[in-house]
Amino acid sequence: MELEFLGTCSGQPSKLRNVSSLALKLLDELNEIWLFDCGEATQHQILRTNIRLRKITKIFISHNHGDHIFGLPGLLSTRSFQGDVGPLTIYGPAGIEQFVKTSLRISKTKISYPIKFVTLEEGGKIVSERGFEVYTEKLDHRIDSWGFRVVEADKAGELLMDKLAEFKVPNGPLLGKLKRGEQVELADGTVLNGKDFLGPAKKGRIVTVIYDTRSTPSIRRLADHADVLVHEATFDASEGKLARDYYHSTCTQAAETAAACQVGHLYLTHVSARYVGPLASQMVKQAREIFPATTLAKDLDKFVVPMKG
Amino acid sequence: MELEFLGTCSGQPSKLRNVSSLALKLLDELNEIWLFDCGEATQHQILRTNIRLRKITKIFISHNHGDHIFGLPGLLSTRSFQGDVGPLTIYGPAGIEQFVKTSLRISKTKISYPIKFVTLEEGGKIVSERGFEVYTEKLDHRIDSWGFRVVEADKAGELLMDKLAEFKVPNGPLLGKLKRGEQVELADGTVLNGKDFLGPAKKGRIVTVIYDTRSTPSIRRLADHADVLVHEATFDASEGKLARDYYHSTCTQAAETAAACQVGHLYLTHVSARYVGPLASQMVKQAREIFPATTLAKDLDKFVVPMKG
Ligand SMILES: [Zn+2]
Ligand SMILES: [Zn+2]
Repeated sequence: MELEFLGTCSGQPSKLRNVSSLALKLLDELNEIWLFDCGEATQHQILRTNIRLRKITKIFISHNHGDHIFGLPGLLSTRSFQGDVGPLTIYGPAGIEQFVKTSLRISKTKISYPIKFVTLEEGGKIVSERGFEVYTEKLDHRIDSWGFRVVEADKAGELLMDKLAEFKVPNGPLLGKLKRGEQVELADGTVLNGKDFLGPAKKGRIVTVIYDTRSTPSIRRLADHADVLVHEATFDASEGKLARDYYHSTCTQAAETAAACQVGHLYLTHVSARYVGPLASQMVKQAREIFPATTLAKDLDKFVVPMKG
Repeated sequence: MELEFLGTCSGQPSKLRNVSSLALKLLDELNEIWLFDCGEATQHQILRTNIRLRKITKIFISHNHGDHIFGLPGLLSTRSFQGDVGPLTIYGPAGIEQFVKTSLRISKTKISYPIKFVTLEEGGKIVSERGFEVYTEKLDHRIDSWGFRVVEADKAGELLMDKLAEFKVPNGPLLGKLKRGEQVELADGTVLNGKDFLGPAKKGRIVTVIYDTRSTPSIRRLADHADVLVHEATFDASEGKLARDYYHSTCTQAAETAAACQVGHLYLTHVSARYVGPLASQMVKQAREIFPATTLAKDLDKFVVPMKG
């Protein structure tokens, strides 16, 4: 499980940062990549990575502002030209389906794979498959904007073969039952309880993605104990009023959420183009005073989401 | 008058070339820039130039395929954020207006300047203002596609002050009349004819832009005696059948047109991503055998359109 930031700038592209998009790479887990937002030229950024478009199976759209969606028609078109492409699902606010369909219809683009649209209308679970769940809640932006919480299922502990060795359990169904934590009776009448021979369960990981929003209570529900919180930080600490007026967040608001939710790591993104050089360093410093495990993401930065203890 | 190629690749962006867009810079003539097509990330390419978006006052769209239009919503939005922006006109096939308006409406983008749409429905003169005319004709592509011929008005010759010196014409209205080629009578009764004191008239320049099309007669009407012909060359000479099947042109078809129309210079663009390195050189060689003054345009290439005579 890895994050790759494809665009980290708010509003308009700058020379150093593209507009919003984030890839959650679940290659080891599902052999899939999920995208969060798709600003213009996301497919161009992907050309600079080793991401293959056909691996992208889900795109989550936080809200319909242009810097978060104008890359969709091009990316969907180009994905058609890769061999053996499977279906793709787009989760987003009302309007996304019309935007995509109008763009593809007027450009006479033929898409070689099925696209399914899931319109976000109320908070709750929107994905539950193969060990992953995704929850969404409405945030507080000028237009409807949604945050996302990706939850990996816990994994059972591994069977401790060393501890089991003295019982000489034959290969086969008995071992399988023990692995699942069930009770078995051996040929000599010994009764073993699988639970006694399992290592510690591995907690699944949680990744929370919060794009454009003011500070609002639903963020903390989505970010609670996340391993990784990706949070917009359009402005630095000194611009609280501007952030509020424009329905955005400051780096310190993001850090306060990270601290309150006891997340593992905070990545700041969707940063105004003005924060470069010393101003960018200062933004990180402000956030780290509140939550030390903070990183300001740059375009094409990759971060592994570590497996918990 | 200068051309700046913003994207020269057909179909999808590659690492080296972006999808189609071309700037005709009329800064000395009109203090304006006109764009031909606007593929995705055209605004990103412009970030790498010294073009200011507010100088772009006209956008001509050849046809509605995605690689020629998906950059419009983003470019129009970003143009709004530059101070003091005037109106902009988009000339293009039916559908462009709906694509742009749907994109802006769903993304809740507020545009700070008026956008006028001119739908191309039949060939003819579509622009006539301040010494420039633009003509369009339908080409032969899978969907309606339009070529453009930009014609600069001829300029009257300059007043030959040396030749006029002996007559001691006073500064003022008399000189103005002579400049316009009119007859005047001096105080001493001498009659002078302005036409006798004017240098040679300067022929206006002609720039023709031919995007996606098969070889078809309307191209030659648009390109006749053009100073510069910009012509798509999706394929090289060996792929005539492929070009025909996909409604595109080869480099040699473009060169044959350039030769037949006696143009000044041919620029090849909209080249398939496969033509890099030796294959690109070979494409140029094939074209130059037919029309020597041929250049294969690369992204961000700039070419002055020389004043005739
Ligand atoms: Zn945004
Ligand atoms: Zn094309």
